[in-house]
Amino acid sequence: MAMILGNLRLATMQPGGAPYGLIETGAVAIEGGRIAWAGPLAEAPPGPVRDMGGRLMTPALIDCHTHVVHGGQRAREFEMRLNGASYEEVARAGGGIVSTVAATRAASEDDLVASALRRVDQMLAEGVGTIEVKSGYGLDIETELRMLRAARRIGRARRVGVVTSFLGAHAVPPEYRGRDDAYLAEQVIPALHAAHAEGLVDAVDGFCEGIAFSPAQMEVVFAEAGALGLPVKLHAEQLSNLGGAAMAARHGALSADHLEHLDADGARAMAAAGTVAVILPGAFYTLRETQVPPIQALRDAGVAMAVATDANPGTAPMTSLCLAMNMACTLFRMTPEEALSGTTRVAAQALGLTDRGRIAPGLRADLAIWEAEDPAELAYRCGPTPLHARIIGGEFDA
Amino acid sequence: MAMILGNLRLATMQPGGAPYGLIETGAVAIEGGRIAWAGPLAEAPPGPVRDMGGRLMTPALIDCHTHVVHGGQRAREFEMRLNGASYEEVARAGGGIVSTVAATRAASEDDLVASALRRVDQMLAEGVGTIEVKSGYGLDIETELRMLRAARRIGRARRVGVVTSFLGAHAVPPEYRGRDDAYLAEQVIPALHAAHAEGLVDAVDGFCEGIAFSPAQMEVVFAEAGALGLPVKLHAEQLSNLGGAAMAARHGALSADHLEHLDADGARAMAAAGTVAVILPGAFYTLRETQVPPIQALRDAGVAMAVATDANPGTAPMTSLCLAMNMACTLFRMTPEEALSGTTRVAAQALGLTDRGRIAPGLRADLAIWEAEDPAELAYRCGPTPLHARIIGGEFDA
Ligand SMILES: [Zn+2]
Ligand SMILES: [Zn+2]
Repeated sequence: MAMILGNLRLATMQPGGAPYGLIETGAVAIEGGRIAWAGPLAEAPPGPVRDMGGRLMTPALIDCHTHVVHGGQRAREFEMRLNGASYEEVARAGGGIVSTVAATRAASEDDLVASALRRVDQMLAEGVGTIEVKSGYGLDIETELRMLRAARRIGRARRVGVVTSFLGAHAVPPEYRGRDDAYLAEQVIPALHAAHAEGLVDAVDGFCEGIAFSPAQMEVVFAEAGALGLPVKLHAEQLSNLGGAAMAARHGALSADHLEHLDADGARAMAAAGTVAVILPGAFYTLRETQVPPIQALRDAGVAMAVATDANPGTAPMTSLCLAMNMACTLFRMTPEEALSGTTRVAAQALGLTDRGRIAPGLRADLAIWEAEDPAELAYRCGPTPLHARIIGGEFDA
Repeated sequence: MAMILGNLRLATMQPGGAPYGLIETGAVAIEGGRIAWAGPLAEAPPGPVRDMGGRLMTPALIDCHTHVVHGGQRAREFEMRLNGASYEEVARAGGGIVSTVAATRAASEDDLVASALRRVDQMLAEGVGTIEVKSGYGLDIETELRMLRAARRIGRARRVGVVTSFLGAHAVPPEYRGRDDAYLAEQVIPALHAAHAEGLVDAVDGFCEGIAFSPAQMEVVFAEAGALGLPVKLHAEQLSNLGGAAMAARHGALSADHLEHLDADGARAMAAAGTVAVILPGAFYTLRETQVPPIQALRDAGVAMAVATDANPGTAPMTSLCLAMNMACTLFRMTPEEALSGTTRVAAQALGLTDRGRIAPGLRADLAIWEAEDPAELAYRCGPTPLHARIIGGEFDA
């Protein structure tokens, strides 16, 4: 028997119609964890209707790029920099990504789950229903696997969908300094195979940048992913333009992420491949970058844009997807509708998920009900809009 | 009988000693709503000690500049701008401060309390114990009084200290356009007297700017405040340098707020008067300003700096004081210690409160216990650090 929720403003995020796919005075019928019906309240199927007081309902939000599993935090390094320390002094004090790698290697699987759940709980409190979680702070076989096991456990500990990305090619660990290719051959590829064999990998990611891996090196990893039948994605064009996005698009990438330095050729290649642009304003803000991603060029090329937190301890110590939406609008001049489609419909696309991200019959009943009326409110506030309820798989979540 | 909380990292915020007045492995004894004792756990007074697991304790945070009581929101206007509307089009659609004035005038006192409490609850969830609340969206006698009554009710509805500021001189309402002095004489001054007679005013504020009131006009209001024995403060030097901060300092102002365009003379005048600089990075961020406040000049002059949200529906739709701290560091290069003293000890000073803002014997037991170890964490995250518990007047708050 269906549960019918009525008197809702439905931001269905169905494309092609009204902005936000909005249905005023709408209703949703939920059955068996799925959306059975959605439309105007006046046309609702027979049965008792639970009155939701005119509140806004959106699909549960989807954070499609996070590093939420990791050991430690980097507040000390943040403080050193603001107290005037040079990058060399910070590095000598053990700062930078190596400090997170050390803390992650030192953490047990239970530790990783517990610290990640604090961050995940903040995300869920603002209506998130699915998160992507990357490895990439282990940089050895054992720790990369431990991170991915911790990620899977989050999906069992909370009502949240978890999609994993294997990010062994995140950085070269200290013990392989100057031997990037040996690191890829001896750690990354074996870790990928082991993690895949354990069912821990939903996609394969990498950091393509002067300070990390070249497009040619990433192609070696992507070839392995292809052989395993795994989709790929890439951190690309964040700090410089190496053509990583176009290379990823040639491999049919789900997404290319960051993209501040993307050029028109890269945008066209992404459009042709249907690769989503994942916009990550939190890192731009934290790093005080000045080069904004080419939003208008992406629009013109017809590239779908997602928005995510990039939740990570170094360049985006944030968990608020609503704040990421606000930053995408304020700093990058995306529209509130683009920001909300970027954390619902397009974020699902970036994860290769076809069963969520819109309010439509047959999709998962992953829904968020807000103490709000206007869907633009979600991007307007610098931080979360108060949540009334989260519904995951058709169940109200306390 | 005292309650003793032990095994805490105490960021006492007592000046003159270690950064943050930090006591490692500390303890706090609480009795009669006050801090009876604070120091190293090894020296704690006799009695059972509640083990707090090594967590960080700070004074409860103080948000010393908010417009948290108001009607409506301005998401539609935010969206129009991002969809390419000009300021004229937004104004024709009823946007800008006049839309908030209209919504506030249309709201009942109950409405104002209910909508403000949603925002206040977000603040309390991140360890805030005292908030300042301004009027200034009524711009007529009746509505200014209603806003201040709503502000007082927040302090009864929740465990939170509320300090009010009368901000009749916030803007000239449409019905007085071009007749600023008549507005001050016919509405602001009578509203101030009526509000004061009702015990609703803790301080008198104004918006000194080309688009609002001149220093000479604000002096008229400040003279009335002085006659009533009320302290003053001022929104000054946000968009241009009118010398408002120096004028306010001459009137012994508690604070001058915003200050992006403050000059060295203004900083010296503030230092001489002991006027606090209230730094409001949320408005800077939202308005995409480029002129940062002269933080180093304020340091050099010896002006104490507070940090606040400016929570308001137009230029800072945010409730996160932790995010304001992060923005103060990231955008203005304040240090995490300055940010935390700016939301505790100095924020108390900005409100004329001597009974809170530090962890020291005799002060109110308004305390925050965090899921954190390092006091720099509070400014490091782009948004709240998870709170373990809030203690207000010695009582744990659920
Ligand atoms: Zn990333
Ligand atoms: Zn203000």
